[in-house]
Amino acid sequence: MSLLRSWLETANDPDGPFPMNNLPLGVFSAGGAPRCCTAIGDQVLDLGGMERAGYLRPMGLDAPALNDFMAKGPETWANLRATLFGYLAEGSSAAGMLTPFMHPLDAVRLHLPFRVAEYTDFYAGRHHAENVGTLFRGSENALPPNWLHMPIGYNGRSSTVIVSGTDVHRPQGQTKAPDADLPTFGPCQRLDMELELGAVIGSPSTMGTRVSVAEADAMIFGYVLLNDWSARDIQAWEYQPLGPFQSKAFATTISPWVVTKAALEPFRRLAPQRDIPLLPYLEEPGPMFYDITLSAALQPEGADAATTICQTNARELYYSAAQQLAHHTASGCAMRTGDLLGSGTISGADTGSHGSLLELTWGGENPLTLENDGTRTFLEDGDRVTLHGHAQGDGYRIGFGECTGRILPARTTP
Amino acid sequence: MSLLRSWLETANDPDGPFPMNNLPLGVFSAGGAPRCCTAIGDQVLDLGGMERAGYLRPMGLDAPALNDFMAKGPETWANLRATLFGYLAEGSSAAGMLTPFMHPLDAVRLHLPFRVAEYTDFYAGRHHAENVGTLFRGSENALPPNWLHMPIGYNGRSSTVIVSGTDVHRPQGQTKAPDADLPTFGPCQRLDMELELGAVIGSPSTMGTRVSVAEADAMIFGYVLLNDWSARDIQAWEYQPLGPFQSKAFATTISPWVVTKAALEPFRRLAPQRDIPLLPYLEEPGPMFYDITLSAALQPEGADAATTICQTNARELYYSAAQQLAHHTASGCAMRTGDLLGSGTISGADTGSHGSLLELTWGGENPLTLENDGTRTFLEDGDRVTLHGHAQGDGYRIGFGECTGRILPARTTP
Repeated sequence: MSLLRSWLETANDPDGPFPMNNLPLGVFSAGGAPRCCTAIGDQVLDLGGMERAGYLRPMGLDAPALNDFMAKGPETWANLRATLFGYLAEGSSAAGMLTPFMHPLDAVRLHLPFRVAEYTDFYAGRHHAENVGTLFRGSENALPPNWLHMPIGYNGRSSTVIVSGTDVHRPQGQTKAPDADLPTFGPCQRLDMELELGAVIGSPSTMGTRVSVAEADAMIFGYVLLNDWSARDIQAWEYQPLGPFQSKAFATTISPWVVTKAALEPFRRLAPQRDIPLLPYLEEPGPMFYDITLSAALQPEGADAATTICQTNARELYYSAAQQLAHHTASGCAMRTGDLLGSGTISGADTGSHGSLLELTWGGENPLTLENDGTRTFLEDGDRVTLHGHAQGDGYRIGFGECTGRILPARTTP
Repeated sequence: MSLLRSWLETANDPDGPFPMNNLPLGVFSAGGAPRCCTAIGDQVLDLGGMERAGYLRPMGLDAPALNDFMAKGPETWANLRATLFGYLAEGSSAAGMLTPFMHPLDAVRLHLPFRVAEYTDFYAGRHHAENVGTLFRGSENALPPNWLHMPIGYNGRSSTVIVSGTDVHRPQGQTKAPDADLPTFGPCQRLDMELELGAVIGSPSTMGTRVSVAEADAMIFGYVLLNDWSARDIQAWEYQPLGPFQSKAFATTISPWVVTKAALEPFRRLAPQRDIPLLPYLEEPGPMFYDITLSAALQPEGADAATTICQTNARELYYSAAQQLAHHTASGCAMRTGDLLGSGTISGADTGSHGSLLELTWGGENPLTLENDGTRTFLEDGDRVTLHGHAQGDGYRIGFGECTGRILPARTTP
């Protein structure tokens, strides 16, 4: 696959995030009501407006969230993509018709792209699981006994999934220092980020029925960047025996663009080597992983520049989103349009490829040096964390846009 | 408080679940579209129809779920209760006007009473936590170190919260016998129930802001009976380190009636004795627990009668729903109308008061004898589990109706 050329010249930039090959979906507003859109070059294309005007057949795009469209299923997803290719391709006569529906990307507001039905966070990166396991439980018990047999996950909180650009208040909570007799309550002192990829479920499944990995793959509509903000001190005290709760419930930031599975097809890769064969219900029928370059940057308040603190790749995952989803339905759990599955932190083997400050600073023992000469163990008030991601094609890129958030001080008066 | 007498004679039965003191809310259908209702005596009163006909001011009741009504807040809740008292009280002249909106309870279908926004399951019963801790981790580590300091909870799955009467397929999953080298996949062999009370959140909270216990209490709309079906073999293998996932995700059954907080006011009780004082953010400003008699019964397929397997009381809880909710917001987690908080299993100190088969049979070691001479360790296909609950007033009862579900065989073909 090479660049699909458009009559919109900014869509043909080989380093630009939004060529015609991409066509990610999101929700924007520009004065009026929020509605569905795509990004092309440096423009937002108002798909809701086009549907209302009759330039797209009715498919749920004239709405403030992608859910109705996603619920229509793979045929409708493919139909929209083909229709947009026809309108946007170099040589198309639709330029005059489309131009009134275009708005400069930097002049619109981007909203949460879909109503998050439920949010599940997995733990599917092996380096991350080994690193965190070592830090929380010691190297003897780093990788839990079940980890190589199934994608471990827990239910997260969907009410606090927010779109890139939304500020996040430092959480408060109960913590206990290892040498203290009693816990105390106050602002988190070990505030962290986690670089993840999120899978967005388009097609639902039925309660009482599990789906295969192939069926699960077909249910996935697309992917977002995801920052699973984490309060490590709260987590360490609360997570035994029922898992993370308030340490993760205060905020999860996602990118405003859902990059469709269709756009990522050329970047599918085979699974990593398995130490132990998986049970048949988790076997991949084909390449289910993606070659997506990912990075995280940290910029303190007032700093001129952000420091890249992590560079990694989605291929570091041990379980694909399709495997996560198949496992999620194993018991008969019903999945719904708008469910969001976080991959878990995507860390590589090297320190510079670790997707969380917990790992990058090894539990706060080795502070990071920032480009403006400051250092960090965990996040301070005013810090901004930005995730980037893209798949590199032959002369084009599939970009996710950015997933950014800034830490505000805790609201300490109830 | 004594019985509030109604002109509807069946509402004055001192042993009946639905006197005028109760007025629980639910959703019914009788041929037409589902809409909100209350139960009074042996009748359902069609509140949606009354609102449409102008006998109630518009308050969101002509809808297939209680969410719109609950979102209107405590003043509206109180207004409806006062209006219904006026209509239903002995001596009221409204009998002729109301009768067309009444349907015999045994002739209608009851639906899930509200759209469950998110479901959180706590672990707030001390006997249960000690029993399960002993069985899963040994008596040395029975009560986790954090347990006496905060209500431990985990996010559950709202897509599989179902109304009483809905059958439940036996879940499948990954399990590993203690002496096995590798896990296997198949139907759950240790299927259990858990007797819980569920709190239904009426008023939302804002992301980034925590609420006090008093504010949390004001946000609660009412309570349901809740059976947190649990696959113990799947749970034992999956729950470390991120908590229960597929072992709980396949089904959670709730009673069709939400008993309002207002109806339960006379049954508030003070907290149990605390071994360790709670941090200020969890201190109760008044009586936050309820004296509610609870029981569970098991009836095998084809058996003439159900066997009562557990008798307990909601006073056995160590943390109230208001404390659970205040803790849930401690990090700034936003709560929404329709959030459901399970209490955790409510076990008393004696064997006959344990709220799960895991405890009742001590991990399957001591089978229960049923009234038809059969025995049970865990649930078999065809078994029906029914929860009952009521608060006993002076000459009246506040009943919850029943919370029942039957186990169907696993769907083993994917």
